[in-house]
Amino acid sequence: MKRAVVLLSGGLDSTVTLAMAQAAGFEISALSFDYGQRHRAELLAASRIASQAGIRDHVVVRIDLRAFGTSALTDEIAVPLDRTVEQMNAAIPLTYVPARNTIFLSYALALAEVRKANDIFIGVNALDYSGYPDCRPEYIAAFEAMARLATSRSVGEGEQVHLRTPLILRAKTEIIGLGTELGVDFSATVSCYQASDQGEACGRCDACLLRRDGFIQCGLPDPTRYVESVRRPQ
Amino acid sequence: MKRAVVLLSGGLDSTVTLAMAQAAGFEISALSFDYGQRHRAELLAASRIASQAGIRDHVVVRIDLRAFGTSALTDEIAVPLDRTVEQMNAAIPLTYVPARNTIFLSYALALAEVRKANDIFIGVNALDYSGYPDCRPEYIAAFEAMARLATSRSVGEGEQVHLRTPLILRAKTEIIGLGTELGVDFSATVSCYQASDQGEACGRCDACLLRRDGFIQCGLPDPTRYVESVRRPQ
Repeated sequence: MKRAVVLLSGGLDSTVTLAMAQAAGFEISALSFDYGQRHRAELLAASRIASQAGIRDHVVVRIDLRAFGTSALTDEIAVPLDRTVEQMNAAIPLTYVPARNTIFLSYALALAEVRKANDIFIGVNALDYSGYPDCRPEYIAAFEAMARLATSRSVGEGEQVHLRTPLILRAKTEIIGLGTELGVDFSATVSCYQASDQGEACGRCDACLLRRDGFIQCGLPDPTRYVESVRRPQ
Repeated sequence: MKRAVVLLSGGLDSTVTLAMAQAAGFEISALSFDYGQRHRAELLAASRIASQAGIRDHVVVRIDLRAFGTSALTDEIAVPLDRTVEQMNAAIPLTYVPARNTIFLSYALALAEVRKANDIFIGVNALDYSGYPDCRPEYIAAFEAMARLATSRSVGEGEQVHLRTPLILRAKTEIIGLGTELGVDFSATVSCYQASDQGEACGRCDACLLRRDGFIQCGLPDPTRYVESVRRPQ
């Protein structure tokens, strides 16, 4: 059975990506990061999801991005709320963490080498949320080209590393549709940038708004657990 | 004054690289890693060297590479001793840490973005020690191409990132010569893969043998502090 490394944040996109990798027949090594993100519930969700999916190799790497500051995901900067999609796409968001995907993929590359996996799955999406430079197809292609020169496999025979981004050009509605077909339990996933410790979503940050809109457009009930202040007006 | 990030391990090559970056007029942010390496003395050396060089911005990032095992630099595998240069170059060494430079450079890229530095210096060398895939010029070029797509600068105007590898094709003797011209205090540097806590070198690992040979070929006294068992037969 071929092995793949899957980056698993505990959010909707990475969980669907994991289901797709499993459906494609890969044995999975899941990789999550504890980087001081303030939505700790995401990490708990990743562990639950990996367990539900029957994954026995789930590596959580502690990394200290706080030294690099400047992001609303790790700092005390307020998460922007109630923005339109146009506002979201107008500039690189405050929630951008410098070089985050580059750091995450570098660890994935190391784990892939140790586990002898040729495939790395990452649930980046360039369509619904184009604010992050390190989600674009040209970035992914450049990382793959670099990765093929970076490891001990690149100087021996052996197969090359493939970076798999099955969601990169899919709309949120498609991603939810794919996940539904594959039996993903969306209620276990946490997308909110400021979820409570119990995994309740704020309903107002960019991630919440895009996610909720996806369920509405799919005509599917939204299984997200929201904080009380959001639940009531709905 | 233009700012540069310099990867500073505390070894001979990175210390000469730092001196070259300073001589070129850059204001320096030094970056070191605490990755569970068993030669802790290297990290202490990095701090001393940064301090001697008058660097006020020295970031030490803790990362946990031990999760990725398999390397003699972090594991309980014995460091190979007393090898010839031919033996060193015959295969990827046991001291290879999977994707290490990729992970290190990814953090450097993040720090460069936060500090608004356009230049990243790394003291890799492909000539004297060609066993590591992630020291080769083609790897460095591929990382730079990826880096230029990875960060927020790549979507705005702003200058692009340059990866500087001033030592990449230099012989150890040249590197020692350059460092001597720039006033580098080589006695402060630690290259040994299994240095004692006091920074004494074993004199027998690949790094020690290459370094000692460099001083001999330069006709310079070797300022390295060796453990007693090596000092005596000399």
